[in-house]
Amino acid sequence: MTSLLLALDFGGTKHTAGIIGCGDREWRGHKRVISGENPTAQSDLQKMFAAARELLAGAQPAAIGVSFGGPVEAQSGTVRLSHHVPGWENIALADLLKQEFGAPACVDNDANVAAWGEYRFGAGKGCKSILYLTVSTGVGGGWVLDNKIWHGVDGMAGEIGHTVVDPNGPICLCGKRGCVERLASGPYIAQRAREWLVEQPERGQILRGIMNNNLNAITGQIVASAAAQGDELAWGALKVAAWALGIGIGNSINLMNPARVILGGGVTKSGDRFWQVLREVARQTALPQMSIDIVPAALGDDAPLWGAVALAEECVSA
Amino acid sequence: MTSLLLALDFGGTKHTAGIIGCGDREWRGHKRVISGENPTAQSDLQKMFAAARELLAGAQPAAIGVSFGGPVEAQSGTVRLSHHVPGWENIALADLLKQEFGAPACVDNDANVAAWGEYRFGAGKGCKSILYLTVSTGVGGGWVLDNKIWHGVDGMAGEIGHTVVDPNGPICLCGKRGCVERLASGPYIAQRAREWLVEQPERGQILRGIMNNNLNAITGQIVASAAAQGDELAWGALKVAAWALGIGIGNSINLMNPARVILGGGVTKSGDRFWQVLREVARQTALPQMSIDIVPAALGDDAPLWGAVALAEECVSA
Repeated sequence: MTSLLLALDFGGTKHTAGIIGCGDREWRGHKRVISGENPTAQSDLQKMFAAARELLAGAQPAAIGVSFGGPVEAQSGTVRLSHHVPGWENIALADLLKQEFGAPACVDNDANVAAWGEYRFGAGKGCKSILYLTVSTGVGGGWVLDNKIWHGVDGMAGEIGHTVVDPNGPICLCGKRGCVERLASGPYIAQRAREWLVEQPERGQILRGIMNNNLNAITGQIVASAAAQGDELAWGALKVAAWALGIGIGNSINLMNPARVILGGGVTKSGDRFWQVLREVARQTALPQMSIDIVPAALGDDAPLWGAVALAEECVSA
Repeated sequence: MTSLLLALDFGGTKHTAGIIGCGDREWRGHKRVISGENPTAQSDLQKMFAAARELLAGAQPAAIGVSFGGPVEAQSGTVRLSHHVPGWENIALADLLKQEFGAPACVDNDANVAAWGEYRFGAGKGCKSILYLTVSTGVGGGWVLDNKIWHGVDGMAGEIGHTVVDPNGPICLCGKRGCVERLASGPYIAQRAREWLVEQPERGQILRGIMNNNLNAITGQIVASAAAQGDELAWGALKVAAWALGIGIGNSINLMNPARVILGGGVTKSGDRFWQVLREVARQTALPQMSIDIVPAALGDDAPLWGAVALAEECVSA
């Protein structure tokens, strides 16, 4: 009998548990878990444990892989904190899971695990090295180098979202000016479009129409949709994001010369023009001798869960 | 008897050959080689071969390590080209050395080999990962990750000099605006100070004095020396370099989170104020969770030759 693997994805407020046979590529079971109101680490853990027990139906997993939406000390499997849910400070998640399910657990942060998922099963298969980016509410990143997740000395590597690409740009939540995240994340794309709509009452008619002139309803997705329908103000707001990502990715290529760069997250679903600008700027930013291979993620929102499966597989063989 | 290692450093116009016992840290012999007028790959090779034969005095080395000032395909030990000397296009240097001296040879480019030298014998000893920068006529860089030089898929990794830190900055030789090299290399520091002296006739009196008002005599070193003597125009020109390096290094730390960053090259000998600004800007650019450990190189101009020794040692044991 094939041994069972348990894969867990702790997102901000949406979590997923899945079980799969070792070496399989189809789920035996798969369950979404919603945090509900005022979640804590304790309540989220209990819900995930319950979902996992239901999926396992009494069986014991051979290993557990976990993607966690926040900083993690991967070697010990300890969560440092969550930016969304209180109570996650220094939780030894791998140990808790081992106690609960009697199996070894590997835990890493979501950008790293998603990178690992794309590398093992998705758009990064067969590449010697990848940079993975997810561009949505924030801009996260993870490296796979030489068949391993690269963590860095503090477990913090991959923070392309907070590399500076325009030192005279607007101020980011992190306090710096012109970070990639400040220019390219969904909420900041929306904020930029909103500011331009206020400043330029004659422009952005398609965008205004989509929102019935309610500027508070604007989101990154709405901006992308208006741009696709030919709204030039919306396209301008989106283009800044593509430009910033192009510089950030070009700089990353200059530094690390990865075989491939893989982009996931809602903002990267903004159409051909977006991708064209991003690739052009990255091409111009990197030295001409460098390979430029920038592709969409293949696993979409499931990348962290598939990465967790890959982590669990290695946990078995370790 | 200890086996002998041959270490070669092919610079732009100055080269060095050295021999050393395997495991030793003192040279048995050491010889500088000058290219002379209109050098070619052929003439430089002959001079280096002659110097090495003289040092070896009939003995056979156990292995050869080589630092080359230009892009190298490290796995095969093939030089791609030299930016200074014609005739180096696709020269299989490792093979030529093996034929000439009957020993295996490892060849890599100078920034990588210097990084390796600092990692093995200098300021990077004991670190899990380093970024090495050399800031002089250009800005080069090399990574050591997980006890290995990181080459990247095209052997081009480490090009921090051509990461963009100010997209509205002045145009670099590479065609882009605001590269680290455009803002921080010695010749460009000199150019900036010269432009400011022309524009601001009342400023830079100390700097003008050092050069007897001959603006063509200005170099990065002269700017640094005037800054040390209190010339505020000179310090301003230098400060831009420190700022650009700080952003570039901070961005690199965000991406890779290395244990240490090591800086060599003439420009980094520009005094405490220079280092203070550089470290401050890097600290502000990197996320607060990241280690910031930025130190001067320990091996100075000998880093490539010591790196070549380390390469040769591994060549023996490989």
